[in-house]
Amino acid sequence: MKVSVKVPATTANLGPGFDCLGLALPIYNEITVEETVMPGSGIEINIIEDSETFDILSIPKNEDNIVYKAIELLYNFVGQSVSDIKITIKTNIPVTRGLGSSASVIVGGLMAANELLGKPADDAVLLSIAAEVEGHPDNVTPAMFGGFCLSSLEDDGSVFYSKIPWPENWKLTVLIPDYELDTRIARSVLPENISISDAAFNIRKCAMLTDAVYRKDSEAMKRCLKDKIHQPYRENLIKGFKELNELLTNKENILGCVISGAGPSILVISENNGFEKVENEVKQVFDDLNVICDIRTLSIENNGSKVI
Amino acid sequence: MKVSVKVPATTANLGPGFDCLGLALPIYNEITVEETVMPGSGIEINIIEDSETFDILSIPKNEDNIVYKAIELLYNFVGQSVSDIKITIKTNIPVTRGLGSSASVIVGGLMAANELLGKPADDAVLLSIAAEVEGHPDNVTPAMFGGFCLSSLEDDGSVFYSKIPWPENWKLTVLIPDYELDTRIARSVLPENISISDAAFNIRKCAMLTDAVYRKDSEAMKRCLKDKIHQPYRENLIKGFKELNELLTNKENILGCVISGAGPSILVISENNGFEKVENEVKQVFDDLNVICDIRTLSIENNGSKVI
Repeated sequence: MKVSVKVPATTANLGPGFDCLGLALPIYNEITVEETVMPGSGIEINIIEDSETFDILSIPKNEDNIVYKAIELLYNFVGQSVSDIKITIKTNIPVTRGLGSSASVIVGGLMAANELLGKPADDAVLLSIAAEVEGHPDNVTPAMFGGFCLSSLEDDGSVFYSKIPWPENWKLTVLIPDYELDTRIARSVLPENISISDAAFNIRKCAMLTDAVYRKDSEAMKRCLKDKIHQPYRENLIKGFKELNELLTNKENILGCVISGAGPSILVISENNGFEKVENEVKQVFDDLNVICDIRTLSIENNGSKVI
Repeated sequence: MKVSVKVPATTANLGPGFDCLGLALPIYNEITVEETVMPGSGIEINIIEDSETFDILSIPKNEDNIVYKAIELLYNFVGQSVSDIKITIKTNIPVTRGLGSSASVIVGGLMAANELLGKPADDAVLLSIAAEVEGHPDNVTPAMFGGFCLSSLEDDGSVFYSKIPWPENWKLTVLIPDYELDTRIARSVLPENISISDAAFNIRKCAMLTDAVYRKDSEAMKRCLKDKIHQPYRENLIKGFKELNELLTNKENILGCVISGAGPSILVISENNGFEKVENEVKQVFDDLNVICDIRTLSIENNGSKVI
């Protein structure tokens, strides 16, 4: 028995939505889980890398592997224990770039293992385990369901989420640099405390962003892709972010520019193919900084994970 | 020339929406502005109190009066100066109770004066002046437009707002105690800094609340009427708040219980007349604390201010 699941990349935060907003992108990892034939063969984790652009994944291949951990929690949930299992990860999503590669393998592993077990767990259980392993739900939710999601890891361990229809003509450009940024480092630069006025700023901007998506109001959206609680502390780690923000302010059909997750990728949201007109200027910013950058303009991925 | 404007009361914050969420209630003040006949007669401010329940208003009756200040800003905007003016405020909205009485008189004064001047300013200008005088837009916006409003005082001084349709069967019960709480005191107990995790909590809860209203989802709403950045610091000033929160948790058809604005009034949101079933228990809470409390269950006020 062997099950493969295709899981999209995700971009989280979108500026103000720290740890709660995320959306799925049409770049996919494929995670295959199989029960190994030989009892006692233990855990086997294989990683097949599709993209030549990026370094070899530095994912542990033992019990510390997050996919294994997630699968173990699922087995525990149904009262079983994992013994011999083979996990194969075929990667297309760049790692440690702020594009939800870890969320994708967690979700993929869980969905495949659940299928192998005869689907004992429903989506809510899988999502809750995925958020527990990842630590926050903003990537795992859109990785699982696709689209633009608002999500919250609640006190009882469940994940509340809402998938809000994303305007079709709002395009997503991901600027993926050729250097990595460990999420742990990007988290370590955040202060423990922030001013109540900065908090109030993000509170209203995140609610306004939610409202702007509902109303498909691009003028409102331009006011919302702002943040005062994580980007100011991270921007020195994200080459080109300040320059891009300056470049893209008040450009026609550009809605905004934010750090993708914890970075270092940058997300630009535009409408009516507005990014095309600035693409050369954006490239120049990265050239000037000697950063090789993969630029991809994409539509939102609306379907989420799929058993294939 | 004499113009009167009827302006609704408002309740702000709704838990997580610190300084950005508010809604209008069908309790009204009436503000009349007239140019006095006698040149040089100066400012005259009269306050007529309808309700016998509350103390005489401690509103300054000179240039320090907020209504006068707002009107002066409007005159300045159109390049004029105020000389002789009579402002009459007929109050039904209890003062210093967290029900937007100051927002109502600011909005009423501005709208009446604008009418007197031949409507030189549009709504956006009036709203911007009102938010400047009040210091935040969460009360003045629904006071002006009615309904449930998300608003933000932007860096350029303009107010961005969105009026989101409120579910018809969600009722608002205001518990108005017989003691006052100066907003300045309620603000002074707030810390300057809060933890980033408390900020993240409010960020997601405020966005979820916005989403829950759009989807008219009462189960989601129950998860949203929570706050970690102002209520924990204010609850000791608000008699009965902790007890009520305990009493109303998991009660059928009760969506939540929050401090109205900076207090001391408390707002309970319920559906399908859920409050009726708990009203006696709520009364008992206040009786036990020896607090006389006026309890009013209302529908949202959807029309906002009106020249009468």
